[in-house]
Amino acid sequence: MNIQVALDRMSIEESVQLVRNVQEQVDWIEVGTSLIKEYGMESVRAMKKAFPNKVVVADMKTNDNAVYECALCFDAGADVSTVMGTAPLITIEACIAEAKKRGGQIMIDLLNTSLEQQKQLSCYDAIFCRHISKDEQELGRTSQKVRSMPEFPQTAVAGGVSLENISEMIHLEPDVLIIGSAITKAVDPFKAALLFNQRISREESK
Amino acid sequence: MNIQVALDRMSIEESVQLVRNVQEQVDWIEVGTSLIKEYGMESVRAMKKAFPNKVVVADMKTNDNAVYECALCFDAGADVSTVMGTAPLITIEACIAEAKKRGGQIMIDLLNTSLEQQKQLSCYDAIFCRHISKDEQELGRTSQKVRSMPEFPQTAVAGGVSLENISEMIHLEPDVLIIGSAITKAVDPFKAALLFNQRISREESK
Repeated sequence: MNIQVALDRMSIEESVQLVRNVQEQVDWIEVGTSLIKEYGMESVRAMKKAFPNKVVVADMKTNDNAVYECALCFDAGADVSTVMGTAPLITIEACIAEAKKRGGQIMIDLLNTSLEQQKQLSCYDAIFCRHISKDEQELGRTSQKVRSMPEFPQTAVAGGVSLENISEMIHLEPDVLIIGSAITKAVDPFKAALLFNQRISREESK
Repeated sequence: MNIQVALDRMSIEESVQLVRNVQEQVDWIEVGTSLIKEYGMESVRAMKKAFPNKVVVADMKTNDNAVYECALCFDAGADVSTVMGTAPLITIEACIAEAKKRGGQIMIDLLNTSLEQQKQLSCYDAIFCRHISKDEQELGRTSQKVRSMPEFPQTAVAGGVSLENISEMIHLEPDVLIIGSAITKAVDPFKAALLFNQRISREESK
């Protein structure tokens, strides 16, 4: 299970500094949508330059203009880009084709998709991200135990992952566990990342 | 009917230069998603600074993190921000509330929304944008004559608007007509914008 640290609502410098601090404890680095929209592709370039050997995920949340947006972030150094599961299928397919051409991968964000849409998407060669959005979390939703989903080739879980609900998240057996503010806003981010790592190892060895 | 020129797939300097050229012929200026993701909020700041008296639309295509993303673009000088109609309702509502607080407006992008979703959304105080995406256009879809839609308080039409299909678009009686490459990629953008203006005046006076 890869740990992906999601960087949002901070400056590029802060995000690089934060990863410097926790890099031994995390596998994938996500340049969050808020960084991309605030600073553009410089956020992705700076991250890949600082950590050339890490998998960098650009949370592009593409809805349209698939080839162009993929080119932007893969050229900037991303290894993985995200597309909305609610986007037209033609856009999702174009993202996957462009990523393949460049040796990268696509993560499909399942935010607000219907079960019917999820079934349609499940045939694609991508990572499927179950996602409780920031806005839904602020409304109090923190549990992923809502409904069943189709079988996906690879999965990720994101949104409100904390040391309190980590068992529930691990139980979903994702390939990628995405952790944001529970690491980035922790008093001691290194210690928080270390604790996540220990809990995951312990749960996985059960 | 306002003409909104949509700026995509170019540098900030090119986009400002283009608007300088066509400003008398257009009402609203859209900083496209591709500019936002490539250059961040600098694209919005530069546009508002150059054209303080124009309505600047930031095509944020928000899916989550509503208040933060609205703050980003309204602080940068946007007057209107966009949210995806496929986003959770809580996100759309938070965008509208934040825009209201700041004296701005929200445009809801109806891309890939179902009729059921459109009905749910139609009660909101926003501009509703019928949108044929760039990727759909590349697949050959250029007509908006696809299906009926609920009554919306204000509407916009976007995607593949050209001098060839302008009559069909005007027939939809949008409050905002969004024109991208038919102006921005024209050999003579000023002349193209002028022709659109003349056609709209002629059709409206019929």
